[in-house]
Amino acid sequence: MENLIVVLTFVGAIVALLYAFFTARRVLRADAGTEQMQKISASIRSGASAYLRRQYTVVGIFFAIVFVVLCLMALLFEDFSWFTPFAFVTGGIFSGLSGFIGMKIATQANARTACASQKSLAKGLRVAFSAGSVMGFVVVGLGLLDISVWFALLKYVFHKNAAEISSAMLTFGMGASMMALFARVGGGIYTKAADVGADLVGKVEAGIPEDDPRNPAVIADNVGDNVGDVAGMGADLYESYVGSIVSAAALGVAAFGNIWGLSVPLLISAAGIFCSLIGSFFVRTGESTDQKKLLGALSRGTNLSAILIAIASFFIIWLCLGMDRIGLYFSIVAGLLAGVLIGKFTEYYTSDTYKPTRDLADSTETGSATTIISGVSLGMLSTLAPIVIVAVAILVAFFAAGGAESAKFGLYGIALSAVGMLSTLGITLATDAYGPIADNAGGIAEMAGLDKEVRRRTDALDALGNTTAATGKGFAIGSAALTALALMTSYIDKVNTMNVGSTFVFDLSITYPAVLVGFFIGGCLPFLFAALTMNAVSRAAQSIVKEVRRQFREITGLMSGEADADYATCVDLCTKASLKEMILPTVVAVIAPIITGLILGPNGVVGLLAGATVTGFLVAVFMSNSGGAWDNAKKHIEGGVHGGKGSDCHKAAVVGDTVGDPFKDTAGPSINILIKLLSTISIVFAALIVRFNLFNLLG
Amino acid sequence: MENLIVVLTFVGAIVALLYAFFTARRVLRADAGTEQMQKISASIRSGASAYLRRQYTVVGIFFAIVFVVLCLMALLFEDFSWFTPFAFVTGGIFSGLSGFIGMKIATQANARTACASQKSLAKGLRVAFSAGSVMGFVVVGLGLLDISVWFALLKYVFHKNAAEISSAMLTFGMGASMMALFARVGGGIYTKAADVGADLVGKVEAGIPEDDPRNPAVIADNVGDNVGDVAGMGADLYESYVGSIVSAAALGVAAFGNIWGLSVPLLISAAGIFCSLIGSFFVRTGESTDQKKLLGALSRGTNLSAILIAIASFFIIWLCLGMDRIGLYFSIVAGLLAGVLIGKFTEYYTSDTYKPTRDLADSTETGSATTIISGVSLGMLSTLAPIVIVAVAILVAFFAAGGAESAKFGLYGIALSAVGMLSTLGITLATDAYGPIADNAGGIAEMAGLDKEVRRRTDALDALGNTTAATGKGFAIGSAALTALALMTSYIDKVNTMNVGSTFVFDLSITYPAVLVGFFIGGCLPFLFAALTMNAVSRAAQSIVKEVRRQFREITGLMSGEADADYATCVDLCTKASLKEMILPTVVAVIAPIITGLILGPNGVVGLLAGATVTGFLVAVFMSNSGGAWDNAKKHIEGGVHGGKGSDCHKAAVVGDTVGDPFKDTAGPSINILIKLLSTISIVFAALIVRFNLFNLLG
Repeated sequence: MENLIVVLTFVGAIVALLYAFFTARRVLRADAGTEQMQKISASIRSGASAYLRRQYTVVGIFFAIVFVVLCLMALLFEDFSWFTPFAFVTGGIFSGLSGFIGMKIATQANARTACASQKSLAKGLRVAFSAGSVMGFVVVGLGLLDISVWFALLKYVFHKNAAEISSAMLTFGMGASMMALFARVGGGIYTKAADVGADLVGKVEAGIPEDDPRNPAVIADNVGDNVGDVAGMGADLYESYVGSIVSAAALGVAAFGNIWGLSVPLLISAAGIFCSLIGSFFVRTGESTDQKKLLGALSRGTNLSAILIAIASFFIIWLCLGMDRIGLYFSIVAGLLAGVLIGKFTEYYTSDTYKPTRDLADSTETGSATTIISGVSLGMLSTLAPIVIVAVAILVAFFAAGGAESAKFGLYGIALSAVGMLSTLGITLATDAYGPIADNAGGIAEMAGLDKEVRRRTDALDALGNTTAATGKGFAIGSAALTALALMTSYIDKVNTMNVGSTFVFDLSITYPAVLVGFFIGGCLPFLFAALTMNAVSRAAQSIVKEVRRQFREITGLMSGEADADYATCVDLCTKASLKEMILPTVVAVIAPIITGLILGPNGVVGLLAGATVTGFLVAVFMSNSGGAWDNAKKHIEGGVHGGKGSDCHKAAVVGDTVGDPFKDTAGPSINILIKLLSTISIVFAALIVRFNLFNLLG
Repeated sequence: MENLIVVLTFVGAIVALLYAFFTARRVLRADAGTEQMQKISASIRSGASAYLRRQYTVVGIFFAIVFVVLCLMALLFEDFSWFTPFAFVTGGIFSGLSGFIGMKIATQANARTACASQKSLAKGLRVAFSAGSVMGFVVVGLGLLDISVWFALLKYVFHKNAAEISSAMLTFGMGASMMALFARVGGGIYTKAADVGADLVGKVEAGIPEDDPRNPAVIADNVGDNVGDVAGMGADLYESYVGSIVSAAALGVAAFGNIWGLSVPLLISAAGIFCSLIGSFFVRTGESTDQKKLLGALSRGTNLSAILIAIASFFIIWLCLGMDRIGLYFSIVAGLLAGVLIGKFTEYYTSDTYKPTRDLADSTETGSATTIISGVSLGMLSTLAPIVIVAVAILVAFFAAGGAESAKFGLYGIALSAVGMLSTLGITLATDAYGPIADNAGGIAEMAGLDKEVRRRTDALDALGNTTAATGKGFAIGSAALTALALMTSYIDKVNTMNVGSTFVFDLSITYPAVLVGFFIGGCLPFLFAALTMNAVSRAAQSIVKEVRRQFREITGLMSGEADADYATCVDLCTKASLKEMILPTVVAVIAPIITGLILGPNGVVGLLAGATVTGFLVAVFMSNSGGAWDNAKKHIEGGVHGGKGSDCHKAAVVGDTVGDPFKDTAGPSINILIKLLSTISIVFAALIVRFNLFNLLG
């Protein structure tokens, strides 16, 4: 029976990867368009590949350093497993690979989507959604592959028990998180520096439209969509997916003391792959051009998958843990519902079909200052609903799982609710990832001078993607908070099981000073992190602005279209700037829990994790939703209200949108990774912190 | 000996009030200027008085409702004291009175400061600083008076023991906080609605200078300075002062079980009054016009007071608690140093003599969007230093006080560090409160058409005030966090001592679900509160914008100066709008801990308080510093760099400043009150929550 679990998980992974492979082949068979389109697509592809190669080099150095540190710890501490350094590295490699493959297919699909959109909206959707599916299934496939191979290795080759297996698994959570943070931050800085830089000089100063080929930053802007919104997102969600599974596995072992608690998250994830596959087959659109019908086709797929996994989970819990523990099933359902509800509220606050974003558009009437004030308060106000939803989900997941009987069951329930949320990632990520592909397709259509109707269609695809992406965001944010809590609990378990001296007091009460101070420090980290990433975008954007201005000034005939812009220099500048700027925020994230631990001990670390989870959740929701609402308020005005494009209201809306760019695409999503990275680092370095810390030395 | 404490505290209160009285008389004897100046001053005064009268009426209704609720609780629960409703009301009345008297003297001093500034900068400073001192000493005098009278009443008339006395004292903390929140929020909305409204139409649309008498909102703007920055600040700091004393008193009784722990904060506060008095006498400037010398004169006063109280505290601890407990002295010093350091960092991040604000000014070169992005990241980044300082202060205060031996001593140390910070409030508030008076004087100088030199001098006074006010802000923010923690501890003590059923589990571990969920909800409250207050400012400002536009359109001859503007309508509009808008945020603050308690029980309330304190501190620092930096970046540009007034950079800076207005003057400072109000409400309603809550019913 245990062997069956390994086989099922492995089969799930392979099926996902095969589906991704064949879908990719189908995408590549589509028409790649005119020579010019192919040329543009090739420049974007080569820029993105060049960026990722250099990013992996920089990240590789960091991974090498951490690998050596982990080997040293394995040498020094006997309770520190030799598997840790290797698991760490595989987590990083697979996370990076998820982003890389996603980027590869996206940069092949952009011109093909533009080309298909020449024929019809539905054909364009099919290409873009297929490419998005490739990334979705690669992410879940690689995630489960990594987990199942390690599982088999540890169990059959090294004959480890359940506790040792789950403990090693937590380590590749750290590798995945670290890679994801680099990818999200670096990619986020790249895409927004290019975007802001291109807009500030091109649209505002030179008065040329977006994606105009005369703009020297236009290729960099399109490369940015791929390295930030695609590769960054891929690495990010790989991390979320794996993080939720390994944290649930660890708590499952803690709760049940055997392999069954560990098996449930693996089986749910494997089942989720099949549910996503079935859902994907239902995203068939026919030749309709009606937006509502297209949206219906997408939602049908995601909803069907969610319903199927809800049914499958019941049987998995029943078979693995018996009817006594069927309460855990309701934990999973609570997670699924919470994800859906957070997504609905995200949509409510950021879509221009609802009041908040329309009110925001109204506030442009009194200028950019009131636009900013209203947008900031909209974002802050929008934190209430997700907080209440997560709070209720935590309580339901905890008590349904039997938390009143023993907290261990309750905490396992919380972890499983995150697994439930992310189990259908294969399809939800597809609906999320196809947005940037459609965006890129629009850019290529513009640059290649295709018919205006093509651009309108790709814009429609992009807008459609925004709505479905809201659900994806709900799952990402909700699961980040729940997974971070699960990881925090795993950390506490880990410290408790370590062989620590008798003077050690593991007091987790809020009034214990180390915990309290840890709270304050942890609470500050998301603010610090957001500030650092936004400053990085500002600085990088400034350098692009200067370069674009220089080219307009020095290249004669650029504005009249007689000379070509030097795209490569802008691409290169963005690459260098973002690689340089991604280091500090990531290093801060890695070092903060270690230093805090060395001073305040494990109690302080728990405080830090709790503080960072709470403010991280709040800041991430605030910044994502403010940014999303500004973006859509601008689009709303461009749709013709408040004077439309070029009016004073539109100018104020553009200011809001520009402020929102680093909010929603750099700082906001990175914080979701940050709060999990803090936990996984704490877990890995627990052996060090428990032995050496000032607080217990003095206390 | 015990009687001596009552006498000393009472004498301290009376001395402060007498000093305030005679200083006020001296201010009133100064020349009130020309007839026109007196007329303008009278309009401001009558507008401010009318606002406060109506504010007190609205607030009175709320107080009456809460009073009735408290009486009902006293009837129903035998462990709920009958003193509570009355102590609650006196706290509210005295808090309101502090703001009222401060406003009265400020509206008398504005024209007199303008008049004195005609002669010299130093003479202007003397009038403004004296008026500020009146408020400073009224606040501390009324605070100690309230405390000492109740102390005497409870001890000598009702023969209550130390625990009962300190418990009753906590109640007027709630009255003071509730009044302060109304005053800060209402006043903050008033002042910023008028300011933003006046600027948007006057400066931006009509192109007339600030404080131009043709602007119909100009009187409302000046009224706003008085009801927001003066009356609001007075009520606010009364609350901080009293809150720190009563929370320390309660923890002192918990730690020592007798009257001595209660006496220390009272004696330190009484001594602080004398130290502030001595410091005030050293704020003598001669006839110098050198800004640095004037700043030196002000700092000399505050620094001397701080040194004196540091010395006095040593003897107070020694005499009251003996050499064994002298460690508490270092807790107080830690608090004082933390306040000074937070002030220094506030200055560093918000003054244009340092790099951050200058960089912010540079970012105006690329437009208003980058100005906003840079300002937001500056504010977020600026949270790190205060967080680390408070963290270190907490640890030092806790362990110096003997927290390792017993947590009770440590927590008392934390509370005393806040008392130390605020003990010299008499003088630090004076340096804070004279800023808005100088600002008003500038407005009157402009409207009365005085010599340009007068306006330059009042501007110099205002700028000087900004620097000294940074220290005041440091104390206000630092003490808010420490006092909130002390109040949270008092709440825990209170619940622990209550006669609760045997099924009740008071688990304060962060992994306990009620605590965890409370933590999330509490963390959300400052975001929610900031959003509500900023929205309120937006809405109120919109109504002013419409009215000012109407007057410009309908009153013929207004722009040419032939007809007078209808100031009264704007004043009335601001009054109505701010009274209407202040209700929702305050009600949310009052109801949130009660509802959370009814659902999650006392554990959830503790989580809520901890979460709100951490994110409240962060959001308050972020918003205050972003706002302050935008303000000063604008002033920096007006000083002639980046093209000076009227340039594109200046326009971008004005957008930043306008966004910063509600950040720094409405949302930011209100949050300091919010986190303490949540605690005091929880304490007062503990009797209800412990008996009736869903969590323990189900759990």
